[in-house]
Amino acid sequence: MTLTDTDRTVHSPVGPTVPSRGALRPLGLDEVRITGGFWADRQRVNADGTLPHIQHWLEREGWLGNFDAAAAGTLTADNRRGREFADSEVYKFLEAVAWQLGREPDAGLEERFRKVVARVAAAQEPDGYLNTNFGRRGQGARWSDLEWGHELYCAGHLFQAAVARARTHPDAGDGLLAVATRFADLICDVFGPGGIESVCGHAEVETALVELGRATGERRYIEQARLFVERRGTGVLRDIEWGRSYYQDDMPVREADVLRGHAVRANYLASGATDVAVETRDEGLLSALRRQWANTVARRTYITGGQGSHHQDEAFGDDFELPPDRAYSETCAAIASVQFSWRLLLAQGDPQYADLIERTLYNVVATSPSADGRAFYYANTLHRRMPGEPADPDTVSPRAEASLRAPWFEVSCCPPNVARTLASLDSYIATAGGDSLQLHQFAPSRISTILPNGEPVELAVETGYPVEGRVTVRILRDAREPWSLQLRVPAWARGATVTVDGDAATADPGTATVRRLFRAGDTVVLDLPVAPRFSAADPRVDAVRDSVAVERGPVVYALESNDLPDGWADVADAVVDVSRPPADTDGSVTVRMSRRAERDLPWPYGPAEPGAPQAEAEVPLVPYHDWAERGPSTMRVWIPAS
Amino acid sequence: MTLTDTDRTVHSPVGPTVPSRGALRPLGLDEVRITGGFWADRQRVNADGTLPHIQHWLEREGWLGNFDAAAAGTLTADNRRGREFADSEVYKFLEAVAWQLGREPDAGLEERFRKVVARVAAAQEPDGYLNTNFGRRGQGARWSDLEWGHELYCAGHLFQAAVARARTHPDAGDGLLAVATRFADLICDVFGPGGIESVCGHAEVETALVELGRATGERRYIEQARLFVERRGTGVLRDIEWGRSYYQDDMPVREADVLRGHAVRANYLASGATDVAVETRDEGLLSALRRQWANTVARRTYITGGQGSHHQDEAFGDDFELPPDRAYSETCAAIASVQFSWRLLLAQGDPQYADLIERTLYNVVATSPSADGRAFYYANTLHRRMPGEPADPDTVSPRAEASLRAPWFEVSCCPPNVARTLASLDSYIATAGGDSLQLHQFAPSRISTILPNGEPVELAVETGYPVEGRVTVRILRDAREPWSLQLRVPAWARGATVTVDGDAATADPGTATVRRLFRAGDTVVLDLPVAPRFSAADPRVDAVRDSVAVERGPVVYALESNDLPDGWADVADAVVDVSRPPADTDGSVTVRMSRRAERDLPWPYGPAEPGAPQAEAEVPLVPYHDWAERGPSTMRVWIPAS
Repeated sequence: MTLTDTDRTVHSPVGPTVPSRGALRPLGLDEVRITGGFWADRQRVNADGTLPHIQHWLEREGWLGNFDAAAAGTLTADNRRGREFADSEVYKFLEAVAWQLGREPDAGLEERFRKVVARVAAAQEPDGYLNTNFGRRGQGARWSDLEWGHELYCAGHLFQAAVARARTHPDAGDGLLAVATRFADLICDVFGPGGIESVCGHAEVETALVELGRATGERRYIEQARLFVERRGTGVLRDIEWGRSYYQDDMPVREADVLRGHAVRANYLASGATDVAVETRDEGLLSALRRQWANTVARRTYITGGQGSHHQDEAFGDDFELPPDRAYSETCAAIASVQFSWRLLLAQGDPQYADLIERTLYNVVATSPSADGRAFYYANTLHRRMPGEPADPDTVSPRAEASLRAPWFEVSCCPPNVARTLASLDSYIATAGGDSLQLHQFAPSRISTILPNGEPVELAVETGYPVEGRVTVRILRDAREPWSLQLRVPAWARGATVTVDGDAATADPGTATVRRLFRAGDTVVLDLPVAPRFSAADPRVDAVRDSVAVERGPVVYALESNDLPDGWADVADAVVDVSRPPADTDGSVTVRMSRRAERDLPWPYGPAEPGAPQAEAEVPLVPYHDWAERGPSTMRVWIPAS
Repeated sequence: MTLTDTDRTVHSPVGPTVPSRGALRPLGLDEVRITGGFWADRQRVNADGTLPHIQHWLEREGWLGNFDAAAAGTLTADNRRGREFADSEVYKFLEAVAWQLGREPDAGLEERFRKVVARVAAAQEPDGYLNTNFGRRGQGARWSDLEWGHELYCAGHLFQAAVARARTHPDAGDGLLAVATRFADLICDVFGPGGIESVCGHAEVETALVELGRATGERRYIEQARLFVERRGTGVLRDIEWGRSYYQDDMPVREADVLRGHAVRANYLASGATDVAVETRDEGLLSALRRQWANTVARRTYITGGQGSHHQDEAFGDDFELPPDRAYSETCAAIASVQFSWRLLLAQGDPQYADLIERTLYNVVATSPSADGRAFYYANTLHRRMPGEPADPDTVSPRAEASLRAPWFEVSCCPPNVARTLASLDSYIATAGGDSLQLHQFAPSRISTILPNGEPVELAVETGYPVEGRVTVRILRDAREPWSLQLRVPAWARGATVTVDGDAATADPGTATVRRLFRAGDTVVLDLPVAPRFSAADPRVDAVRDSVAVERGPVVYALESNDLPDGWADVADAVVDVSRPPADTDGSVTVRMSRRAERDLPWPYGPAEPGAPQAEAEVPLVPYHDWAERGPSTMRVWIPAS
């Protein structure tokens, strides 16, 4: 516990991604604060419900205890608890708590944080190595199983926790950053030039090393991340049942056209590669990543923003292979996708990246946790055909299937990943660039920053979004020079208007810019048409042919069996009348449906004989992120259209 | 090598299933012979290509060598080759060879068979136990891993090989039956009343024990099978990630409504349970199995007859969860389904069971092997979106994905399973019952039997089926008493006719019965309307909404990219015009298609904007079982309809 922490810290915004260049500069938690509404509610549940819940399970399952046993010298392969990557859940928890403490100091939470850090630090070996799963009696040797061992992956999450702490509390003196840098130094020694010429089977350390380099000013970490990015795709890992594409070792990052393989790995790798491209001014690599993002969004992404069609290997499918009933759409893949989009947004400034972030946050990240923040979806199906069984709140779920939300999993990556994302969400609201401030996400919030050109800016955002489409930006400080307020107009928001002090103008999807010498009290009002709408899919998404989804603003809706009229057995019975737009009362959406009661034939294939529609009814839909809060049900996002 | 083999053998038809009661009596390989046509071609390839191919790989991969090492006492966990169930591939190979020798004596093949039997027998332990994966240095103890160890599963395949040998060559004197009965006796000791009250994680031994009991007259084996069937579903196996339904241990067999879990396990269990129900006159159990069959066929079966929608756990999905692009449709599941249907057909006599057998044989079993019988599909997808890579004919494929056919797999259950099925296929053509002979499958064949009432019958079947719809049955022997020729009329064959010595009559789907005092030279002609037809799916099969498949007789057709007109990039471009029936010239089927060139949108969801159809063309289809014989391609069975 020396001064190393602060010595190696350079000033930077207090947020999870701080590139040294790019179109936009992120604003830290000290500059943006979500003050109410949809996300503030979830941040409150995250702090009060989820964080204690996670710590409870980390203790109960012994994943924290592994560090104690390692420090005491009693840890062996036989008594170590959890899967090979269990350490990483502790680190993600630490990262989440660090961001939360950065938002809201809390002496009790601070003390719990420090105690966990001390237990982790005590397990670090003299040369900096830190992993409870390798090197002891009965365990594999260090770096002996790069394909599946997750050592560098765990290290990456340690680094991200340390960066979060360094940025939110640079003078904490708890030693976490020193633990991280000692391990990072070792990794650079072991995997640097002349060392092991390989990578981790689960990308993660790449983005973490770049961030650690940014936070400490240590260029070597960024160079090591570059080496990892360049090596991947050259066949440095073993071939496996699902092919090297599973861990993106099938082709070099700069040559790929689309994300493929394990969806979390793919997005973490793309995030790290974007960081490397930005820091090394590698325009070719950045261009490849933009191309991959575009093709992945156009061909391999669910309407929720979810990614990953395969349960078997938690992986992307082929182009347009997007079955709603077999959607895996892992929560962590959505979080990783937000990280990738965020990095491209900062680098390029294109609002399409913020569009996908919004979609993914509202429809996957917000879907995973239960209302009380103590149960989670791991996979986020878009169609449940048979009701699931409620998970026991006191039992670890062995299943990452699209079952009901569960309190904890044998592979429990998602709960702490949700926690760290919600705890740092303020940072994704707005950015600055030149003499402009960009508002990317619409939430009641307070923003106070200095634009890159030196202009101090203060404003408040008031909105009932996403239920309401009106976003009011109130300027709180007289400007010295004219500056630009840039408002994202989502791609779905055709017919939006911007009203400045009473003068309304239409705003096309993209960016609406208001430039003036703002005075305190000025208001800019963005009106987004959030009326519910039917959406169809590209016909190549065969699995949802002739079906529609209902969206309202950024929120995808679903038909849940709880809402069916009496006598309608199942969501499979319902056909939606698309000749009449969905009805809407303050976010309560209904559609006109007819019941098509199918009867079983002995053999379900033959001449087309459509069943005649029977009863008609006005049926409520539910925001997809709110489904399965009323007990076991069937559900579908895509509804057959009449 | 004592006389035990023959001592314990009772007379029975020379075929793979010989129940002691039931509506229909199977005919053995000595009574029915396929003499030409579609299946004779495949049997020839099976004998000349597949059987030597399998033996080559069994030697090369060391799965046969495991037995030698076991006999020599040198086998350990470290030097044993292959997966835990590798022994079973040797046994399935033996079974296939036994049937093939029963069809066509061949001195060279006979010698090779005996040599393999001797190597297997030498590895048997003094108490009868025989498995190369348990009980030695570094290996688990016997019966220590019933969930995954596959010991009883392997034993079951040994028993089936022994039964095949006993029935085709009862006086062979090679000792195989004695090896089987010694092991079966031990299993009855270990798992009988008062023993281990559990079952094997992979059902198989149940049907095998019943068959061994039938072949030897040993009732104890049938009783042991009954115990295994009754125990399953009572939670005797551990819970696992995919739930106990994976190995059907979630509910008792007699309580289930539908097949579920691992599709091969489910069908083998259902087959064994049917055998038990028949032998123990358990009408309640038989009724449950009929119900499960009906619900599985109505809700969980692909149009090809394939079963299993999940890659992850090789399992059935929920009702109507039948994505064509993620169809697993394992070859072995199809074979197991044929076994289940066959047993119900023998027990009940209902031609619907033979309908499914026909569909599954033509569209899954015939699809798996390549034209030269040296490469196989493990999974049989109904939609390939991106071209696969050709498999190296000299390399074991780690992947059971729906890739191109591969020569051998790490899990190589399918090749020998296809081999034993084709080698015994003659037995599935016809049955006898009372004073009737039933013709279930239409192939050029010669049948000579004595009906259960004592009437000798001889007839020849001539047909170009399935290309042609005419099936001519020529009576070769004057009858002493009137008897009934019963011809299956498939469910799809609306408008079939039966012509007896020139007099034609229509025949509804089901069974057409011709009863008379047949004279040598009489002919009965069944004309089945095999003109190609469009088929749609139950609307609850959401994945193929608004699409059609083309069937011709029992054969499912597919659109393969090789056949697209110039300028059509991919099968995704094609829309079929269903207003005009498919054209047909002797099985060469074409449909009218328009090209719908889709362009990528940045985001593939939004207001419905169907692309305008462009070029029109007459496009050939290919029988699904012949696809992927012309190099990498894309393919689809279900084609969007205009």
